Formats: sequence, C-alpha cells, structure tokens
Amino acid sequence: MGERVLGVLGGMGPLASAQFMLRLTLLTPAGRDQEHIPTVLWSDPRVPDRTAARLGRGEDPLPVLLRGLRGLEAAGCGAIAIPCNTAHGWYEAMQAATRLPILHIVDAAAAELRRQGVAPGRIGVMGTAATLAMRLYQDRLAGAGWDCILPEEAEMARLVTPSIAAVKANRVAEAYPPLAEAARALAARGARAVVLGCTEIPLGIAAGPALPFPVVDTIDALARAAIGWAKA
Amino acid sequence: MGERVLGVLGGMGPLASAQFMLRLTLLTPAGRDQEHIPTVLWSDPRVPDRTAARLGRGEDPLPVLLRGLRGLEAAGCGAIAIPCNTAHGWYEAMQAATRLPILHIVDAAAAELRRQGVAPGRIGVMGTAATLAMRLYQDRLAGAGWDCILPEEAEMARLVTPSIAAVKANRVAEAYPPLAEAARALAARGARAVVLGCTEIPLGIAAGPALPFPVVDTIDALARAAIGWAKA
Repeated sequence: MGERVLGVLGGMGPLASAQFMLRLTLLTPAGRDQEHIPTVLWSDPRVPDRTAARLGRGEDPLPVLLRGLRGLEAAGCGAIAIPCNTAHGWYEAMQAATRLPILHIVDAAAAELRRQGVAPGRIGVMGTAATLAMRLYQDRLAGAGWDCILPEEAEMARLVTPSIAAVKANRVAEAYPPLAEAARALAARGARAVVLGCTEIPLGIAAGPALPFPVVDTIDALARAAIGWAKA
Repeated sequence: MGERVLGVLGGMGPLASAQFMLRLTLLTPAGRDQEHIPTVLWSDPRVPDRTAARLGRGEDPLPVLLRGLRGLEAAGCGAIAIPCNTAHGWYEAMQAATRLPILHIVDAAAAELRRQGVAPGRIGVMGTAATLAMRLYQDRLAGAGWDCILPEEAEMARLVTPSIAAVKANRVAEAYPPLAEAARALAARGARAVVLGCTEIPLGIAAGPALPFPVVDTIDALARAAIGWAKA
C-alpha cells in the first residue's frame, strides 16, 4: 500500500484490537483524514488460545500467527504491532519469520513507564497466567531496573483470569471491580506503578473510576510506539 | 483467510473505522475470542476527499478505493463493508469491479429504521454536502415510503460540515452541540427519526446527552448488517 503502512496482527481479543485502532487514531496528531496513519488490521480471533497453548493445554497458535504476518506482508505493511501481550511469547519465532520489524509490546510499556517518570524499583505487572509464567515482563524489564511483582496465585484465579475472559465475552463493566482490586493489592505491596500487561485489562479498568497510582495501559503504549515508527 | 471473513474498506475517516470495529465486536454474540468475526480492516486515510471530488473540487478517489478492494480480495475476504457514507457515491463502480458483495450502508440504515419501528413518512437525514447532493438516501429510501428532509444550506455550513471536519481532526467533543442543534431542527420540522448519514456524526453525537427522538447510527447499522452476513 506504500511506505510507512502499519500492520496490526490482531483479534487477540478483537475488542482490544478495535480499541488499539481507536487509540492509535486519537493519539495521532492529525488535522484531517489524510494526515492519519495508513493501517491494515488483520483481526483473526480464531488464533488458538495463547494461554492454553503455553500452559500445555491447547493447540499451537504459531501457524495462524504466521498466516496473519504473511497477509500483512502481502498488503504492503512496513512494520507490525501486535496488541496482545501473551502472543509475544512467540515473538522470536515471528520475528525470525518476517523481514518486517515487529514492535515489542514490553519495550513499548517500558517507554511508557519512562514517559510517566516511574523511577526504577518495584512495579506491579498484571497479565494472563501465561504472560506471567513466560516472564515476558520480568526478564525484559529487569535490565532497566524495574523489579516486577505479580498478583498472587489466588488473586489470579479469583480476580484477573475471570476478568480477562469477561472482556473477551463483551462483559466489560463487570471486569472493573476485580481488576481494580488486584491492581490495588499490588500497589499496597509497594508497586509504584502497575502495568496492565494484557490488552483486555485496560478495557476493564477504563469501565470505572481512575486508580490512584500510575498505570501503564499497554494498548496506549503500543499505539504510541506505532505512531513513533510511522512518523519517524 | 477462510470462509466468512469480513473485509472493511476504511480510513474514511479512521476514527469512524475504529468505532466500526468496536461496535462490530460489541454487537456480536460471542463468549470467547474464537466466536468473534474474522475481519480485515484496510484503513487507508489517504483516499482523496470524497466530498471535494463529488463537488468537483478534488481528485477522484476511485483508484484508491479499488486498490483497497484488491487488497481485501487478496486477504481472502468474503464480503465488504465501507463505514463511509459518501464513498457510497462510488458504490456501483466499486461493485462492478469486484465479485465480492458490498453491503450498502443505506440499506443497512433502512433495516435499522425498521428495527426501531420508524413508520413510513418524514425522516431527517444528516450527512456530508456530497452525500446529500448525490441523493444517496433520498432516492434509495423513497421506495420504502420514507420521505427525507435535509438540513438547510445555512445549517450545513454553520453546523454539520465543520462538525464532520472536527471529528476527522480528533476534536470529537466540540462536535456535539452543533450536530445536536442540526438534528433537533430536523425533528422540529417533523422528522420522526434522524439518520446520522455520515460515520463521523455518530461519534460527535455520542459525546453528549442522548437526543429525545429516534436516531439511526450508520456505524451500528452497518455493523449489524455485517454480523447478519457473517452469521448467515
């Protein structure tokens, strides 16, 4: 489609992808249609469940992820954003399979922590059980001096995991109270900021009052990274 | 990408396309990612301005529209939705150029009028100057017994046209008062419902209190038509 066309490998979940498109548009400085960023969104919600696969209970999503990458390459995209944290467990395999740069959502979250002025030290990370088990945040942020604490196993089972499923089923409002409770528990344990490290979580958190500590919305963070790429 | 993949020819404007993706997702009955509708959104905000072209002051958008259709065909889509009313001025030329069915946004609006129980008679239609001048709604709805009244020329210049431009520039909240005033004027002239016949208009109207008469959101109407196609 031309130079600087963004490819979005999405559908994981589809509501998070739509919200990514909305935030990408609203965060872009533009005075008319023609100043916005050309984008192709490949929203394939049929990608096998990433969490089930990583926990050894489901089909490998990689072939469907690679099919999406091929589609975005064919459309003429110049870089790829993936508004799903858990899918970044397959980041190296995807990056090895394409010549297009894939913007890493954890790097985008780190840039957002810096933009918000969050000093090195203890931060909280919420995400799917697979994202946390794969240590996507813990390992990639450690070098920058952020020490990640996570919800406890009982909080994951009672609060975080069911809320992610509720957003995927379009029951967004009911996800707010449990997600806010889990985030508050991390802040109470000394986190100076909480990363919403699953793109369903900011949708739930947006459905209620703002939290009284810094949060990193990984949808917004990835949108800012994509705008940075497009306008470079 | 497989059977029943929806293609969305978008970017006109990009915020309306993102909102279409959001409403498509929220209106789909789904309990998990894999029950949502696979969709490719080709969001190309570089399509030349449709209103300027139709009013004889700008470049023909058809070549860029056809490039988008080719991209969606190559991605394996089975039908096309275009969340831009004015682009439907090129509907026949686009439909002649592809074997994929293109869902017509005015037919989707008519289905929504029926769904809301709006009886035949006088209705109001707001849209771009080009959409109204091309008689997209007046001619296509006349057979069903709806008689369309339009904003007056001075209302278009003072209220509707600047509001559409404001939404395209991400200044959504400031579009509400003028758009609501134009819609109220149509209701005062006897319209029993008002069709928001430009996909920027529902974004502005959603930024303030609900209007006290039936309105047809053409983003939602097209999303319902697309879901009907995908689930058929």
